[in-house]
Amino acid sequence: MISGDAIDSPIPVSVGVIGATEYTGIQLVRLLLNHPQLQIGYLGDRDHLDKQLGDLYPFLEIDLDLPLAPIDADAIAEHCQIVFLTLPDGEAQTLVPTLRERQLKVIDLSADYRFSSLERYQSYYEGDRSDYDLLSQVVYGLPELYRSAISRSSLVGCAGSYPTASLLAIAPLIKQGLVQPESLIIDAKCGTSVGGNQPKPHLLYVEAADSIAPYSVTRHRHTPEIEQICSDLAGHDIVVQFIPHRVPVVRGLLSTVYANMRDPGLVREDLLTIYSAFYRNSPWIRVLSNGLCPQTRWAMGSNLCYLGIEVDPRTGRVVVMAAIDNLMKGAVGQAVQCCNIMMGWDERLGLPSKSLYP
Amino acid sequence: MISGDAIDSPIPVSVGVIGATEYTGIQLVRLLLNHPQLQIGYLGDRDHLDKQLGDLYPFLEIDLDLPLAPIDADAIAEHCQIVFLTLPDGEAQTLVPTLRERQLKVIDLSADYRFSSLERYQSYYEGDRSDYDLLSQVVYGLPELYRSAISRSSLVGCAGSYPTASLLAIAPLIKQGLVQPESLIIDAKCGTSVGGNQPKPHLLYVEAADSIAPYSVTRHRHTPEIEQICSDLAGHDIVVQFIPHRVPVVRGLLSTVYANMRDPGLVREDLLTIYSAFYRNSPWIRVLSNGLCPQTRWAMGSNLCYLGIEVDPRTGRVVVMAAIDNLMKGAVGQAVQCCNIMMGWDERLGLPSKSLYP
Amino acid sequence: MISGDAIDSPIPVSVGVIGATEYTGIQLVRLLLNHPQLQIGYLGDRDHLDKQLGDLYPFLEIDLDLPLAPIDADAIAEHCQIVFLTLPDGEAQTLVPTLRERQLKVIDLSADYRFSSLERYQSYYEGDRSDYDLLSQVVYGLPELYRSAISRSSLVGCAGSYPTASLLAIAPLIKQGLVQPESLIIDAKCGTSVGGNQPKPHLLYVEAADSIAPYSVTRHRHTPEIEQICSDLAGHDIVVQFIPHRVPVVRGLLSTVYANMRDPGLVREDLLTIYSAFYRNSPWIRVLSNGLCPQTRWAMGSNLCYLGIEVDPRTGRVVVMAAIDNLMKGAVGQAVQCCNIMMGWDERLGLPSKSLYP
Amino acid sequence: MISGDAIDSPIPVSVGVIGATEYTGIQLVRLLLNHPQLQIGYLGDRDHLDKQLGDLYPFLEIDLDLPLAPIDADAIAEHCQIVFLTLPDGEAQTLVPTLRERQLKVIDLSADYRFSSLERYQSYYEGDRSDYDLLSQVVYGLPELYRSAISRSSLVGCAGSYPTASLLAIAPLIKQGLVQPESLIIDAKCGTSVGGNQPKPHLLYVEAADSIAPYSVTRHRHTPEIEQICSDLAGHDIVVQFIPHRVPVVRGLLSTVYANMRDPGLVREDLLTIYSAFYRNSPWIRVLSNGLCPQTRWAMGSNLCYLGIEVDPRTGRVVVMAAIDNLMKGAVGQAVQCCNIMMGWDERLGLPSKSLYP
Repeated sequence: MISGDAIDSPIPVSVGVIGATEYTGIQLVRLLLNHPQLQIGYLGDRDHLDKQLGDLYPFLEIDLDLPLAPIDADAIAEHCQIVFLTLPDGEAQTLVPTLRERQLKVIDLSADYRFSSLERYQSYYEGDRSDYDLLSQVVYGLPELYRSAISRSSLVGCAGSYPTASLLAIAPLIKQGLVQPESLIIDAKCGTSVGGNQPKPHLLYVEAADSIAPYSVTRHRHTPEIEQICSDLAGHDIVVQFIPHRVPVVRGLLSTVYANMRDPGLVREDLLTIYSAFYRNSPWIRVLSNGLCPQTRWAMGSNLCYLGIEVDPRTGRVVVMAAIDNLMKGAVGQAVQCCNIMMGWDERLGLPSKSLYP
Repeated sequence: MISGDAIDSPIPVSVGVIGATEYTGIQLVRLLLNHPQLQIGYLGDRDHLDKQLGDLYPFLEIDLDLPLAPIDADAIAEHCQIVFLTLPDGEAQTLVPTLRERQLKVIDLSADYRFSSLERYQSYYEGDRSDYDLLSQVVYGLPELYRSAISRSSLVGCAGSYPTASLLAIAPLIKQGLVQPESLIIDAKCGTSVGGNQPKPHLLYVEAADSIAPYSVTRHRHTPEIEQICSDLAGHDIVVQFIPHRVPVVRGLLSTVYANMRDPGLVREDLLTIYSAFYRNSPWIRVLSNGLCPQTRWAMGSNLCYLGIEVDPRTGRVVVMAAIDNLMKGAVGQAVQCCNIMMGWDERLGLPSKSLYP
Repeated sequence: MISGDAIDSPIPVSVGVIGATEYTGIQLVRLLLNHPQLQIGYLGDRDHLDKQLGDLYPFLEIDLDLPLAPIDADAIAEHCQIVFLTLPDGEAQTLVPTLRERQLKVIDLSADYRFSSLERYQSYYEGDRSDYDLLSQVVYGLPELYRSAISRSSLVGCAGSYPTASLLAIAPLIKQGLVQPESLIIDAKCGTSVGGNQPKPHLLYVEAADSIAPYSVTRHRHTPEIEQICSDLAGHDIVVQFIPHRVPVVRGLLSTVYANMRDPGLVREDLLTIYSAFYRNSPWIRVLSNGLCPQTRWAMGSNLCYLGIEVDPRTGRVVVMAAIDNLMKGAVGQAVQCCNIMMGWDERLGLPSKSLYP
Repeated sequence: MISGDAIDSPIPVSVGVIGATEYTGIQLVRLLLNHPQLQIGYLGDRDHLDKQLGDLYPFLEIDLDLPLAPIDADAIAEHCQIVFLTLPDGEAQTLVPTLRERQLKVIDLSADYRFSSLERYQSYYEGDRSDYDLLSQVVYGLPELYRSAISRSSLVGCAGSYPTASLLAIAPLIKQGLVQPESLIIDAKCGTSVGGNQPKPHLLYVEAADSIAPYSVTRHRHTPEIEQICSDLAGHDIVVQFIPHRVPVVRGLLSTVYANMRDPGLVREDLLTIYSAFYRNSPWIRVLSNGLCPQTRWAMGSNLCYLGIEVDPRTGRVVVMAAIDNLMKGAVGQAVQCCNIMMGWDERLGLPSKSLYP
């Protein structure tokens, strides 16, 4: 039986979802419909204007009488207090300045507001930007590391899927100075939903099934994002090795992180103690204490991140494995978690913890 | 935002799950933990005695302090008012007589109590039975067809997964006398979880992946079950053709039903009207009205059944497609739905309607 | 050890593949490179002109020094004696008249030359055609049924994938008058490669995985093709019910065929005898004699068609299951088989019989 | 058209396959049936005695009249000159001493004869052994590294699947002294066929599908094997980090190898030159020269190993990716390649180079 905690909030907060027909937008709308404190007040999209999302995707069980509307800042501001942006990289930056002028809280799921340094952003992303001043206000949307700043922020750039799993695995190591930062290697594997819902040849079932495929080796855009946060945690610049691989699952992302320990005398129990303490107040983190390795299936459909930790005394390395659902903790689940924190609510509100198994 | 319907039930009802470590048992426990009116009071199993289910499957997020206990009728009766049995075929029949003597309500998910005729049962299942008298009390656990009887029953034999999808597709046709019963053909396809969690060679990933495999052609045990209910609906004996196929999905079952129409002048709109009326009070049925064909993915993780209907004027046939999640509407979701009805509650209570997509 | 049958053909025959970068084209080129009597003389394509196929797909191990050239009838005629066309439906008809004028043998894999009746073609396919006279020369490229006509033909329209499996299951039934033709129902299931290599949303891994999806119910374009051949075999018009389903495999197609027997006294052994006799001289057919049901995996990568036959005395029906690889026996393997027959060679020449297992 | 190289060998060599009903045994038998110089003279197995393999697996198209016979050294010696052993780890060691006494050439696919040091073997494998003296004769069956020794050997212990891909990626780096050996990290991913055909719960479709699962982290038995060969190549002891992951593909293994370069000035072109030279005489290696990353699908069904090489100037690391089919180059393809070399034949003999695509 679920606990009957009464929620004393008769007045729900109105939110907008801009980019509502992307995979992330759809998933977000479904989460919001189950949120006890939030109410959808605006669905913005470039296509399908005036149509109902529930008519476009009748199988989604979206019971909402709200037509898709243009991406217009004034109209959004009129209907919402908080806006979630699930647009392709490069589009949020043209909209957010106006939304912020109208005092809306903004939670962006693209790469546009993940970087405090324009230089770092431009080393991997193209295009000029005129919203420099906003970058100083940006908070990186990874609650386990920036909970306090998120709670005070009005503009959050949600962490990418690969960075989320990777940084949750790495953070205690760097924060406690346990490893040699230059030894950090992240070997990541992800399902095909990481590629979005645009039909591209390599994302066809016929191409993606039955294969294991590394891609963007040494050049992936999530690299500077991971490095920015690692550097911030360490207090000095850190360069990491990050390599993603595509595997035939729909949802699921595993980061396997390798690092040389500074103190080769540390054993797994030590690390477990450190990780458990580090994430003591993080309800979405599960540190596996019994030698289990996390599987991505365990997180499928939930906002959880499972962490498995091994120490190899032969090599002096620590190996940390982080498993998440790339669409949930790696995208919209995290966005809702950030929203909960910005509003001063329990960060578990409206988010699923039970995965689908089997 | 979810609606804040207050539930006026301070006292939850205690239930038992016997066979708690089967796939169905695990899935059922997870559903029950989210049920607002039910509370798990007993977890029975043959193995893993005294262990916690949450320790055996730490990734299931089962927050329940209740050790696995022996399958003992007295102990069960002491702790429960209702018992769900998720045991292999043939085992419930040794336990249920005692449970009924102790006035427990029983919801059995095996084949043991699906048949009112011992003869029909024994034509496909082996073994002698001494619980003849109980068979007259049995109600077939398919709420859309036997809602009223279930509400008065204390012993429900839940419909099998193939029969559930097949009968939901067929029932309006037979009940309204729309088709020639002897023309009924059911071509069904199901994911590998239909085979349970016992490791058998043909259920290995290596064997089941990349293949489409018919099996038990003309001899499957779900045939007499489908025929029993069709006959009951028609008021005379009906024989059907039923052929199952195994395909590489985890969850998901599609029944494609073919039948010759008595009146070749009927068009799809007529059938849609008939089906919509037939299932007007069935909240778990979705009759697709816009020419869409149902996909099993749409039901993955929910208790819904999607029905697509086509009429082929060239052949004079109606084709009805029913898509369900074989573990939910095809098993434990349906069991909880039956329980809700037996208790006089809203049959949606505690059951998910949103599937996982993508 | 493979047998050392000497092949007395010092002079290979030069063939062209037009549409070489389609999935079927690529697969065909790879087959031809292993063919002992054929030599590729022309690779035609609309895109990638002047490039080498082996450079476009370096992982295909295509060792061939022949740039992609325009689809030009004169150039093709200059280099080839036989032409395989693997173009989208509707394109072959603009090219074939010229090729035939130049006396080339043509094997078309599209729907353009599968129909002897323009009326039947136009009932499911759009567009006017000016090549009426060619239709009278066309032979339907399903060797097990039209071997003799193919051997004398210069223009073969290869059978589609669904019709191939379906007709091989049905033909003995109709030809021997064993069933009531109006009772024929074909429930077919196929992997996603049947959709080709154009990126379409429903063919994305994320959409096609984990689902069973009927489509084009009562309206699929392979229906008139199946009906044409059934009618030809029967000597009178036959209408069939054909419904395809998409399942998450890459290659593999299973047709489950249902029909009412004229003589309800027939048993499986009778049918096995009839099928074995019918396909006695067909080296690519395997009639399963031991009660096995065919799986599509068994045919994956080979040109074989597996047939399983069941008789249900309870319903008076025969159920025949046909499993093929839709890209091999359902497309290019069959095209090469037709070519072998047109040239008077052993129809097994250059074709694989061993599938990939596991 | 395939080239008509005449093979001047009228007398085939007779070989035995012991463990013929394992996945590897079955796959091996199928390869051998296509081998121009080998002939199967004995099929040994513990089960199914006196049965025909082609009857047990009718879909394998094994055209061989040879019943399964007991695993008896004398009987084997009577019928064979060469013996392939595809038995579980620990069983070959009880048979091989007798086979060697009878002068048979032995190619073992288990772990039993991969180690020249009993100590290293026993650090990861259990059990006493009395065949110490044989270990000094053993040659490690990875032809690209030990071609010459294999050609002179009569007892080859074929490399495991993970070691094969990993060592082919690593060997040029160590042999040329390009990297710091202690920095070697191998992150490997493999399909479920690596687990064999014994039904184990975690290999069920329902468990293995839709998930990415690391396992045996820091403790996998292939670690000492990789270290033995790395040490041999380097001339001093090397310890590596090796972590395997299971992903939902049937066949396919990818090793991603990371290492710090000694000379940070090296660029990818340098490495490509070195790798191309290193594998100049290795017909089964494809060094990808155009910035492509290898996918496992490219090798599915063939004996090829694809190598992709990247240099990251930011981190000073080289990343090498090796993709193979774990059942072919990772098992029986390699065994046949070793056999070819032992017999002085072209090492390509009887082995497929074309994968199945799509």
